[in-house]
Amino acid sequence: MSVPIKEFRQRLERFQKALQALELDGALITHMTGLFYLTGTGQNCHFFVPAAGNPLLMAYKDVDRAREENVWENFLPIGSLKEIPELIREAGFTGLKRLGLEMDVLSWKMGMTYKKLFPGVCFEDVSMTLRRLRMVKSEYELEAMRFSAVNHAQVFRHICDYIRPGMTELEIAVEFESFARSQGEQGTVRFRCAEQGMRVGLVLSGPNSALTSCYDTPLDGQGLSPLYPRGAGYRTWERGEPLLIDYAAVYGEYLVDVTRVYISDPAPPKLTNALEVAAEIAAAVAQAAKPGAVTGELYDMAVTMAAKAGLGDHFMGQGRQAPYIGHGIGLEVNELPVLAKGDKTVLEAGMTFAMEPKFVFRGLGGAGTEDTYIVTEEGARPLTR
Amino acid sequence: MSVPIKEFRQRLERFQKALQALELDGALITHMTGLFYLTGTGQNCHFFVPAAGNPLLMAYKDVDRAREENVWENFLPIGSLKEIPELIREAGFTGLKRLGLEMDVLSWKMGMTYKKLFPGVCFEDVSMTLRRLRMVKSEYELEAMRFSAVNHAQVFRHICDYIRPGMTELEIAVEFESFARSQGEQGTVRFRCAEQGMRVGLVLSGPNSALTSCYDTPLDGQGLSPLYPRGAGYRTWERGEPLLIDYAAVYGEYLVDVTRVYISDPAPPKLTNALEVAAEIAAAVAQAAKPGAVTGELYDMAVTMAAKAGLGDHFMGQGRQAPYIGHGIGLEVNELPVLAKGDKTVLEAGMTFAMEPKFVFRGLGGAGTEDTYIVTEEGARPLTR
Repeated sequence: MSVPIKEFRQRLERFQKALQALELDGALITHMTGLFYLTGTGQNCHFFVPAAGNPLLMAYKDVDRAREENVWENFLPIGSLKEIPELIREAGFTGLKRLGLEMDVLSWKMGMTYKKLFPGVCFEDVSMTLRRLRMVKSEYELEAMRFSAVNHAQVFRHICDYIRPGMTELEIAVEFESFARSQGEQGTVRFRCAEQGMRVGLVLSGPNSALTSCYDTPLDGQGLSPLYPRGAGYRTWERGEPLLIDYAAVYGEYLVDVTRVYISDPAPPKLTNALEVAAEIAAAVAQAAKPGAVTGELYDMAVTMAAKAGLGDHFMGQGRQAPYIGHGIGLEVNELPVLAKGDKTVLEAGMTFAMEPKFVFRGLGGAGTEDTYIVTEEGARPLTR
Repeated sequence: MSVPIKEFRQRLERFQKALQALELDGALITHMTGLFYLTGTGQNCHFFVPAAGNPLLMAYKDVDRAREENVWENFLPIGSLKEIPELIREAGFTGLKRLGLEMDVLSWKMGMTYKKLFPGVCFEDVSMTLRRLRMVKSEYELEAMRFSAVNHAQVFRHICDYIRPGMTELEIAVEFESFARSQGEQGTVRFRCAEQGMRVGLVLSGPNSALTSCYDTPLDGQGLSPLYPRGAGYRTWERGEPLLIDYAAVYGEYLVDVTRVYISDPAPPKLTNALEVAAEIAAAVAQAAKPGAVTGELYDMAVTMAAKAGLGDHFMGQGRQAPYIGHGIGLEVNELPVLAKGDKTVLEAGMTFAMEPKFVFRGLGGAGTEDTYIVTEEGARPLTR
């Protein structure tokens, strides 16, 4: 299954229109996700997109793989960054004054390199522009997400039969991950801007499921060391405790993200109640998430419902976390739109997000739910349930 | 096992001396590895290190974990980046003119944020300075690496008994990874500056073991999709083919990196010969890698030996890769020193590196070896054999 060529033409056209609106002469795309989205390859390349005209892919490594995967005609192998300005000029694009770069993922050091390579050129950040273009998914992309969703559901069914109190978080994580991997799960996900060393998967028991960490996620657990402060640890899941399993999964290129909380008997009423409220919030927000809905208002709706249920102080980590209840998802686990406080994105059909209303009870545990949704005319439909 | 407090004092002192030599007023460290190395915590913090005087840790998230893990006295929770300049002034550091940042891992966008936060301050890149400080390992650090080495060896012993022709790369990878994870391996490593979505582990069979990719590593394989173009794929390991297993592993915080190539009968003589030459190169370079040796000369020695054996054109991917035969290793898998063409680092006792002389035969496979070494007065001693 590969991306239809006409889809690449549409993506390019939309990006070029956006560049024109920003009065840029073009953009240089180098980050793997953007490259893959616009060209079909994620190899080490510079993709020059002029505001109008044919784009140019300059491949450094691996050249053969980039040539084979890329869909565009103008393809040139390069041996050094220094060749890039001249190759762009030779392609007929001269007198460049304003160029876009993805400054959220480009290091400051590399930025200085580009400044030297293109003296006199003014650089602008186009990372949000390209991320916004990726918000609305095509039928091809939705199918790829459904494929990940079906596989991911099998892993959750497997783990649901497997788990029992007395197992350690790590034992359960190993079973989850190896079952997923044996089905072809990548074992790692693309998390934009995040630190390396983040395992995007959590198996957290009891009070561990209420721990937060450096990452912008509601619940993270203990992890195995201060340098890997997230995910399963050596703790044993005891009777009467929650077990929170939160994994993003990618089969192919497109991600889904799911959380399930299992509470073994005797279940603390606080947590079972919170689970019910989370499900109610998810259902209400999903129903309201129709084209035209505003993300920040959906967030407010969730917060209001949590407060009405008397759980305002426990919602999404008592304000210690990024105030959001959902995040866009697709090639990356943290795409746009974000269902966050004050966010003003207007939903469109075909947008996808993971919604994760979660409650945190310090010392007791976390309770909540997460599914991946597509925005449709009838509201957001869960892909992962 | 945690880092002795006097070691933090030594690290800070060495870093402050380096800042003084660079005529900087101080540095702001925010990247997880540097933070952990200098403070004991990897949580989301800004660590202000003045050229002289007491440092200041400003913690954003998770504050409780940062407070507990950090070893320094001056600890302040913050709610926003905007508080940082004032907190530094209040700590008595006024009139800052030149500040160091780790520009190799800081995004250009964040760089612009710091420029606004500190108007008039000139920023310099101290990433190489801090990375050079981390080159020489203490006895504590070496012990942590030995711990990873012992665990990693068990996984290789296990996989050596497990593998047989007819298995797929993915099957073997799943077994390797789940066995490692069940022993407490982190399942992900810290790879400085690398793109997300890189799994630092390879199981590659036959011609796949000769494939390169976008990453600066000699051999990468096919992977499972163009957006995850590295590591095990669905290919079956056939009789008479090489199987290359290359995994970095971290138990706790410190890494080791090992490659083994298994060739099933009937073994192609080209590959068995290359394996022998690789072992000879590794032994000779290790013997020469004494304090005072220059990294670039060790690289040249390896290249000369490969050429004398008639394998020059196949060494380290026929010039398509970064021209190196080894990389420093510790908290990150790509530390300094690099045993690379032209590199002028003078070895010191206690430096650690992974050395990986490898030969690439397109269409046939890769052959070589990799171990993690400590530099001692008698030459480099393998930790992982």
